Amino acid sequence: MREATLRDVATRAGVSIRTVSNVVNGYAPVSDTLRAKVETALSELDYRPNLIARNLKQGRSGMLCLVVPELDVPYFAELARAVIAAGRRHGYAVMVDQTDADPVRERELLTRNSRLTLFDGLILSPLTLSAQELRERGNKTPVVLLGEHIFDGSFSHVAIDNVAAARDATAHLISLGRTRIAAVGDQPYRTGETAQLRTAGYRQALERAGLPYDPALVRPTERFHRRLGATAATALMALDSPPDAIFCYNDLLALGAVRGLLTAGVRVPDDVAVIGIDGIEEGEFATPSLSTIVPDKQAIATLAVESLVALIEGGVAPAPAEVRAAHTLLPRESTIGR
Amino acid sequence: MREATLRDVATRAGVSIRTVSNVVNGYAPVSDTLRAKVETALSELDYRPNLIARNLKQGRSGMLCLVVPELDVPYFAELARAVIAAGRRHGYAVMVDQTDADPVRERELLTRNSRLTLFDGLILSPLTLSAQELRERGNKTPVVLLGEHIFDGSFSHVAIDNVAAARDATAHLISLGRTRIAAVGDQPYRTGETAQLRTAGYRQALERAGLPYDPALVRPTERFHRRLGATAATALMALDSPPDAIFCYNDLLALGAVRGLLTAGVRVPDDVAVIGIDGIEEGEFATPSLSTIVPDKQAIATLAVESLVALIEGGVAPAPAEVRAAHTLLPRESTIGR
Repeated sequence: MREATLRDVATRAGVSIRTVSNVVNGYAPVSDTLRAKVETALSELDYRPNLIARNLKQGRSGMLCLVVPELDVPYFAELARAVIAAGRRHGYAVMVDQTDADPVRERELLTRNSRLTLFDGLILSPLTLSAQELRERGNKTPVVLLGEHIFDGSFSHVAIDNVAAARDATAHLISLGRTRIAAVGDQPYRTGETAQLRTAGYRQALERAGLPYDPALVRPTERFHRRLGATAATALMALDSPPDAIFCYNDLLALGAVRGLLTAGVRVPDDVAVIGIDGIEEGEFATPSLSTIVPDKQAIATLAVESLVALIEGGVAPAPAEVRAAHTLLPRESTIGR
Repeated sequence: MREATLRDVATRAGVSIRTVSNVVNGYAPVSDTLRAKVETALSELDYRPNLIARNLKQGRSGMLCLVVPELDVPYFAELARAVIAAGRRHGYAVMVDQTDADPVRERELLTRNSRLTLFDGLILSPLTLSAQELRERGNKTPVVLLGEHIFDGSFSHVAIDNVAAARDATAHLISLGRTRIAAVGDQPYRTGETAQLRTAGYRQALERAGLPYDPALVRPTERFHRRLGATAATALMALDSPPDAIFCYNDLLALGAVRGLLTAGVRVPDDVAVIGIDGIEEGEFATPSLSTIVPDKQAIATLAVESLVALIEGGVAPAPAEVRAAHTLLPRESTIGR
């Protein structure tokens, strides 16, 4: 069936096309009588306004896209809530896309024909893209980056200070008298990653406390998932000299580690203290509740949306800014007990 | 700066507009030499194809939108992953929108000017919309519904059998010898809701086992969040005759209830057994691990996408179908212990 046009509606309603357009687009006031006629005709003809055509004229869709690796990683779901709220405050709808950290799908975003060109701007948390790929992308939609993966100064970028966050987490364990502290979540094969910055912070804290660095206590994990945390904790406890504390690079790894330890009969925190990063709600209701480093997600979301809106609406693009959001230590039962 | 057009690119490359169009749109093969010239000009001029214009011609965006109340409710995040995968199998990109269960935002989706008209179809999990509002919506984008909120036969609809799911959860507690079973998550003020179907299933299971129904054991909660589960469990334990088991209407309520019980010194499951619904990963790693009813999320996602694609591509809309996905009981430590 052919889609109804404004002309069809005007004919059916017995009014001018301009009147129909005024009702549909709100360009000018219309009397109640005329409006009623037009509304009836719109319904009878099942008229769908051509929003795509309207966007074409304006060159804007009013939509931003937040691209994250995995929505079922609660940090990203909680961040999405904050970004959606920040977008609304600036008059933008935010849609969320998930790449599953798949290099093929991350690269699709950059192509000239990417569907993301329908959006006015992207907030992107990439895991596999290089800075060069992002600079040379065919799709020139404005981009603001989250996280530490690409960090060469070409793009506006919002993140916490990951070195300091990891240092604070490790120092908290040291302050409790722990001396053999493991680290779970390193990703040595990915250059410039968040994980490597966290390893650096962990090592700094050990160094400042005069504690030795033991590579056997640093466990890489492919992703930041619960199951991998449980596996790593179990492996650590099988060492001849097991740890008395574990710093995990996110809360999911830490929650998995706690479960792995409890299943093996290890007491948390009495035998092994555990801390994560992310401040997700799940950690508050876990038993024991999870100590964590809480990034200021509201600030990350607000700063990212503000940077992006400046790029979209600013005319001249501002210089890429490196924006730091705050983080705070939140000690709970998994390190300090009840 | 004016956006570069195909004509600008053609002039710069010294080729015809048709050749540029063939390179950009892939309409016809182009020699390597010509293609290289065009690609260089495209980069130099920073050409962005007008995807909006192209969609206008085709009348399709190739995108579906999944609208959920809350992405930080893990059930929806896990479902989103499955819907995105199912969409890709059918050649559609799926974007995710979150309404925060806000009636204003749910109604925005339905307006003639809704940005969602950019999408070819919607998979909608509404919390406040009525069937009438949905039937009379200005935005005629094809819709498939998830969950039980609107269920009057006007729309294709995918859900588990919520009465049976609740009956199975309650019957599991009864099979363990529990006789005083509470229910947490009722929403008596919302007609035709998922929550009411679950209350019906709970009552059926009691009736079949010859157990009395005690309204004092049924606790409404405004939403299905951890904190509300903890509060409800604490209130239940303050009764003169507290329960020996709690059936929660989702896993988050159940995880909150477990935490509330443990904090109060109540042993789970020895003193009080707890079961939820949703089968989220969090319950597997909790201590005690959470017994649950697992909906077949893959089936829900696949059936929803298939129904929607049939509506979009089918020409004639198929009759609204009521599609049931399977669910299974997964007993874990929170009911059967270690």
